[in-house]
Amino acid sequence: MSADAVNLAGKLALFREHWQPRTVAQLNDYDVMVVKVKGEFVWHKHDDTDDFFLVLAGRIQIRLRDRVVALGPGELFVVPRGVEHQPFAEEEAHVLLIEPRGTPNTGDATTAQPRRVV
Amino acid sequence: MSADAVNLAGKLALFREHWQPRTVAQLNDYDVMVVKVKGEFVWHKHDDTDDFFLVLAGRIQIRLRDRVVALGPGELFVVPRGVEHQPFAEEEAHVLLIEPRGTPNTGDATTAQPRRVV
Repeated sequence: MSADAVNLAGKLALFREHWQPRTVAQLNDYDVMVVKVKGEFVWHKHDDTDDFFLVLAGRIQIRLRDRVVALGPGELFVVPRGVEHQPFAEEEAHVLLIEPRGTPNTGDATTAQPRRVV
Repeated sequence: MSADAVNLAGKLALFREHWQPRTVAQLNDYDVMVVKVKGEFVWHKHDDTDDFFLVLAGRIQIRLRDRVVALGPGELFVVPRGVEHQPFAEEEAHVLLIEPRGTPNTGDATTAQPRRVV
């Protein structure tokens, strides 16, 4: 590893909170984030953007209104814009997220977590 | 895994060629791709976009004119737009790439690999 490399496990070791994404890099006007998840997140949707999930460790479900997408390590899913979804993890899981900068994680700026950088 | 989940190792098992990215998902107007790399790629730059690399397996170097960024599994680097770089891998490595759709992988449409979907 060199100074420029972003080690995702190293970034994840810096915090413990669930559902609080940390920005680890930027790609054009997108934030690349890591997040620890456990339990149920709120049902929400993003009208203006797709929503990228790549599982790094553990297992998650992305519940959609008509089905459930189950993801393990090395598996990704892109929730299309406008599609309601509820992330869920029975045990703690670690996920890479990519979203346009400023996208509220709940789909609603009034309830969203602030963007944090690690 | 469900039908919607994209299993990256499964996608990588579908081809053997080096330096020929395969699109596995789309995020807004970006292609999410997997690629097998070995040896040296050409020096190139993208004037209009950053260039995202996440190593899934093996080790790569991203040589820049002033330094080398070494990446192993679970490590990522975003090459800023306009910065010349040469990806290199001593042994075969597997990488997740994210770039705006239509970005030529060599930085030059006349020498670029066509975008393939798996």
